[in-house]
Amino acid sequence: MYDCSELHFIPMTDVIHQLVNGQTSKDLNIQDRGLSYGHGVFETLKISAGQAVLWREHLDRLVTSCQRLKISTDHLQTDLESDLLKLPVQEQAVLKIIITAGVGGRGYQVPEKATPTRIVQIFPYPVYSDQPEQLGIKARWCQIQLSSAPLLAGMKHLNRLEQVLARSEWSDASIKEGIVCGCDGFLAEGTMSNLFLIKNGVLKTPILHSYGVEGIMRNYLLDLAKANAIPVEVTQLTKADLLSADEVFFCNSLIEIWPLRQLEEHCFEIGPITRKLQSLLKAESL
Amino acid sequence: MYDCSELHFIPMTDVIHQLVNGQTSKDLNIQDRGLSYGHGVFETLKISAGQAVLWREHLDRLVTSCQRLKISTDHLQTDLESDLLKLPVQEQAVLKIIITAGVGGRGYQVPEKATPTRIVQIFPYPVYSDQPEQLGIKARWCQIQLSSAPLLAGMKHLNRLEQVLARSEWSDASIKEGIVCGCDGFLAEGTMSNLFLIKNGVLKTPILHSYGVEGIMRNYLLDLAKANAIPVEVTQLTKADLLSADEVFFCNSLIEIWPLRQLEEHCFEIGPITRKLQSLLKAESL
Repeated sequence: MYDCSELHFIPMTDVIHQLVNGQTSKDLNIQDRGLSYGHGVFETLKISAGQAVLWREHLDRLVTSCQRLKISTDHLQTDLESDLLKLPVQEQAVLKIIITAGVGGRGYQVPEKATPTRIVQIFPYPVYSDQPEQLGIKARWCQIQLSSAPLLAGMKHLNRLEQVLARSEWSDASIKEGIVCGCDGFLAEGTMSNLFLIKNGVLKTPILHSYGVEGIMRNYLLDLAKANAIPVEVTQLTKADLLSADEVFFCNSLIEIWPLRQLEEHCFEIGPITRKLQSLLKAESL
Repeated sequence: MYDCSELHFIPMTDVIHQLVNGQTSKDLNIQDRGLSYGHGVFETLKISAGQAVLWREHLDRLVTSCQRLKISTDHLQTDLESDLLKLPVQEQAVLKIIITAGVGGRGYQVPEKATPTRIVQIFPYPVYSDQPEQLGIKARWCQIQLSSAPLLAGMKHLNRLEQVLARSEWSDASIKEGIVCGCDGFLAEGTMSNLFLIKNGVLKTPILHSYGVEGIMRNYLLDLAKANAIPVEVTQLTKADLLSADEVFFCNSLIEIWPLRQLEEHCFEIGPITRKLQSLLKAESL
């Protein structure tokens, strides 16, 4: 059996730079609706060779999500691009952007003229001593089931208690990810990633109309697969589908692709389509 | 038909005093998990004659909710009581308390030694020019349905996007509250209040095991009714139950009891049990 017990993850906590509404700051007004209600959205991007990777795609999701949550997007793109120019250039780093509905006093009602709060943070790029992209990872099932909330599904909003509770189900550092199902019992995603499986040459990932985050890397990989003649299916998938899959992997904008090697007692091979997608991503210089 | 169109609500936005971890401040660290994930809880209390009303009950819910969300409660009661002594005494005011999981870097995992953030705010007591407690209010049905999330149900946590979206369904200032159902179609609550109805002398309120907030005033009224020989039922209730009810009211710790007078085209009388509970509350000097 594949043993990941010696693998270690080096957490990143030391922020390099932070801007709040374009000014260097570490502070948020405690009356901000981002805190009061989680009324906001965020994006986490990879900075590579000084560039924000898949910037256009992240920006598009940010704008669409703000609109769904009644947060003004006036000047959002120009303000964010101006923020990025103020930051020290990084060869490789993590860029986190948070947009909230702004200061809004007490009460759920969205104020008519609220000014959104714009937070931009740069963190060091995480170093994984255990080569998860090459050697694959160990994962487990989470007990918690994601609630069905179609009006919130797909977005990377600030209401993330279900993910916090899912991630709190284990502390064994050798387990890198947990797999979460929806309240209907179908596969949803990882706690911090999207989930793909491959069966008989077809790349499959759960449909996320009721819960889950439609990851930028998930959608990018779906397009990349189609462009390279790998058939794809976005559909309802069961635990049994996963256990009988030929290959399984997790993805997000930072980790890109982490193959699954062991899920509790069940072992997986890292197969040719996973490796092909990894090399296609590398060729795209993401 | 009862016309509430001339009624006005005077919103309160001017905070009187704010403490963050016992110090006068208006700022939160932007790396706080309360912002990143909504990883925290809050309480809203009435200050009356210089006292926090139902303090013990609010504190108990705060402690229980923190424990459910893996937030340390060490010294919480003594720290909060010490905070309250630092605040200017108010004859009547609103006290809001937020407890978050504290600063925790990136990543859902709860840090082993996170120090919670404690926010205490005093707002002016709201003035309602239209005597909603006496004359009753106009309400409407909300379209949004609350998702079923048993691990989060009952708590007043910081993941409140569903309430924000519910409240954004109307802007007519004469409508004071919206009634929200759960995803199973049963009645849940108001956007900012709990919901009670009375049928044939029995006081009924929705069971909140899958969604909703178990309000302190809701539980207090259930006890008050029982102590005064009014039979109570906490059960699944339908829209039809509400429409055929003899009396309906909303409650929370600030508004106490607001009778429902008009729900879209449907009118209600303000009945004897609603009035009895209001006078019992007044006799308790809450």
